[in-house]
Amino acid sequence: MARHTVRDVRSENRFEVLHALFDLGPSSRQELARHTGLSLATVTTLAGEFLAEGVLRIAAVERNAVGRPYERLTINPDRGRIVGVDVAETYVDATVYDLALDVLGRHEAALDEDQNDQVYVVDGIVGAIEAALKASGTGREGIVGVGVSMPGHVQHDSGVSVFAPNWDWHDVHIEELLAERLRLPVYVDNPLKAAILSEMWFGVGRVVDSMAVVNIGTGAGAGIALEGTLIRGMTNNAGEWGHTLLVLDGRPCRCGRRGCVEAYVGAPGLETTLAEIDPSHPALGRLGQRDFVEAVAVGLAAGDPVLRELVRRTGRCLAAALGDLVNLLNVPKVTLTGWLPTALAEWLVPAVRDELPHHVLPGSLPGLTVGVSEVPGNAVSLGMATFTLERFLTRLGLAGTARTRPQPGAEAAQTIG
Amino acid sequence: MARHTVRDVRSENRFEVLHALFDLGPSSRQELARHTGLSLATVTTLAGEFLAEGVLRIAAVERNAVGRPYERLTINPDRGRIVGVDVAETYVDATVYDLALDVLGRHEAALDEDQNDQVYVVDGIVGAIEAALKASGTGREGIVGVGVSMPGHVQHDSGVSVFAPNWDWHDVHIEELLAERLRLPVYVDNPLKAAILSEMWFGVGRVVDSMAVVNIGTGAGAGIALEGTLIRGMTNNAGEWGHTLLVLDGRPCRCGRRGCVEAYVGAPGLETTLAEIDPSHPALGRLGQRDFVEAVAVGLAAGDPVLRELVRRTGRCLAAALGDLVNLLNVPKVTLTGWLPTALAEWLVPAVRDELPHHVLPGSLPGLTVGVSEVPGNAVSLGMATFTLERFLTRLGLAGTARTRPQPGAEAAQTIG
Ligand SMILES: [Zn+2]
Ligand SMILES: [Zn+2]
Repeated sequence: MARHTVRDVRSENRFEVLHALFDLGPSSRQELARHTGLSLATVTTLAGEFLAEGVLRIAAVERNAVGRPYERLTINPDRGRIVGVDVAETYVDATVYDLALDVLGRHEAALDEDQNDQVYVVDGIVGAIEAALKASGTGREGIVGVGVSMPGHVQHDSGVSVFAPNWDWHDVHIEELLAERLRLPVYVDNPLKAAILSEMWFGVGRVVDSMAVVNIGTGAGAGIALEGTLIRGMTNNAGEWGHTLLVLDGRPCRCGRRGCVEAYVGAPGLETTLAEIDPSHPALGRLGQRDFVEAVAVGLAAGDPVLRELVRRTGRCLAAALGDLVNLLNVPKVTLTGWLPTALAEWLVPAVRDELPHHVLPGSLPGLTVGVSEVPGNAVSLGMATFTLERFLTRLGLAGTARTRPQPGAEAAQTIG
Repeated sequence: MARHTVRDVRSENRFEVLHALFDLGPSSRQELARHTGLSLATVTTLAGEFLAEGVLRIAAVERNAVGRPYERLTINPDRGRIVGVDVAETYVDATVYDLALDVLGRHEAALDEDQNDQVYVVDGIVGAIEAALKASGTGREGIVGVGVSMPGHVQHDSGVSVFAPNWDWHDVHIEELLAERLRLPVYVDNPLKAAILSEMWFGVGRVVDSMAVVNIGTGAGAGIALEGTLIRGMTNNAGEWGHTLLVLDGRPCRCGRRGCVEAYVGAPGLETTLAEIDPSHPALGRLGQRDFVEAVAVGLAAGDPVLRELVRRTGRCLAAALGDLVNLLNVPKVTLTGWLPTALAEWLVPAVRDELPHHVLPGSLPGLTVGVSEVPGNAVSLGMATFTLERFLTRLGLAGTARTRPQPGAEAAQTIG
């Protein structure tokens, strides 16, 4: 059962101050109090703790209308470095951030989708992290943590990859393996949880408290936040929208079932659909999924009518599957993220929007918006960096791990009592 | 955004004391404190307010081991009466409860599913309520409120039936219409919200904080609670699981789309499936849906192999659709409620359980249980009575409307601060 203890409320207040600084940039204590709904006294106390730990610094001292000096606070980017890593079936994308979560460097390495050996994958992850550190000129000493998103079913509390269907991994202690290799604190989670966390901190989740982010590449899944809470489910396995049905007894899916959403909207699904329309289409000859999707984008830009039909059919399937998500959860916002929608957004998003009214119940359609995520860079890497920042603050004693986004009203409970 | 104010925390504490009394029966203040996790001082304060308003009464004075007297408190059933009403396509089921939510009387009236006139439906509701009051020997004077569940999309805050597809109603001010006719406080909501609230208070929601209850009759839908919060969605339209897809471009659905879950697992869906198996089956000749389902139950009891095939196919569709719900939300419990699963539980539940492992992802299957709701009586009526009890306490100034179930830890936030 969800419990709100004093510690949680205080944690939430702390995350809220940090959140406000990400939103506002350098701010006075008064501005932070106004933005968060916290009392000035509470903001002052929390800011004092953050300053003492070097997590915040004084950006400037200014004077107000009556000449009284006041300080602008900002997140101290140089307090440490965080690495956020998005591991997918076909690539590792590692990004080095400063503590203000600005990007210092990035490296993407390809993974051979037909290799499922643990050593191969771990080597690929470590190599990408080392290359990103090198690209950003960062040494090991300043790194406060590495957050790694792994595909499949991940237990974030134990750091175990319970099941990764693409590699046929079962109960791989990946957090431990990586921590041993990197000699750094590692935190492992699932891309859906990372994507929704980054939306809550840096995307449309800043203005709505309920939303879903749909992540599509080889596979597909949804990160879900409802009323400010990240939905993990009983075993951190929530969000497997890619394995909800589009067509009972339809196309075979990687999960063993038939007719899952993923089999129609993931990259291999698009290949299957294109083969149904035109089995001799040149885009089908490519070796890898990403090459295939790039060829599709190039062909669409050139006006290829067969690829337009591919987008129409895919957009219809995607709209139907997003319709299911909206009909079930009645969220006002759905964003698309991942390499596939990013590559095809120009064509796919209009196709989805055309079809959506045919699939969403009338009562859930007004106010609904669907679009590409506005989270900058790789949303999964940024989400993993944000989880890692939360963990770092926890280690400092500054905050418990907050599963919920800061709640403005929580303040009152603390000071009145 | 979800806000936790002091008022909310106090409301939650109050609901929690009431909740504990429903769970435990007559209890001492010490027992309530132990069960709720609240401090004895807080329980004593809240109990004092409840006693002053007559919502609680002293059930007995007993003596502990050292001979010191202590009081057992109980909900005062005679403080008022509540009517809970389940309005569906084919019937109105009205139940009169005392304030402890024990049933005093009940009346079910048939609704002609082909009549969609407002006056006809309102007359039917009012008639069923009056008959239930008569059956329970209850006069109007003691009634603290009437909670009415209406099918379709209902705005619970404005009391408007936004859209009821079965009657083709749009923006019918049903709460106002009923309040005028009944001259009583009326509260209107949707059966999915009522069903999940009754599960949270009186069903498996007492032991888990995340679950879904699937309500099946003519239509189908899901009430959802995640981490103790009842999921309403942006426009109180969450839970429309019946209008998520089972088969893209499949059977026509009442919503205008094709292939929705409802078209396979609702009563008309079963008629369609039976006609596919054996168009001349005698159960198909019935006039109404409920007669049809009763005939199916009778035939199954007699071992009719065609009906066994109907159950097998329906169980498979239901398992697939429940699998979607579980794959998306990773809830540990799903219960079935409504007249259709109640009538066919003996055959349908085993059929669903057989198929479920083929549709739920391996990571979400361990610990998952699916079964018929244990909420006594009509879960929708009881849920509406519970909402009405919450409203009554709010009017007394005893509690805000709590969207969330009481959270044990909230106490600490109030007293330490
Ligand atoms: Zn699948
Ligand atoms: Zn439908």
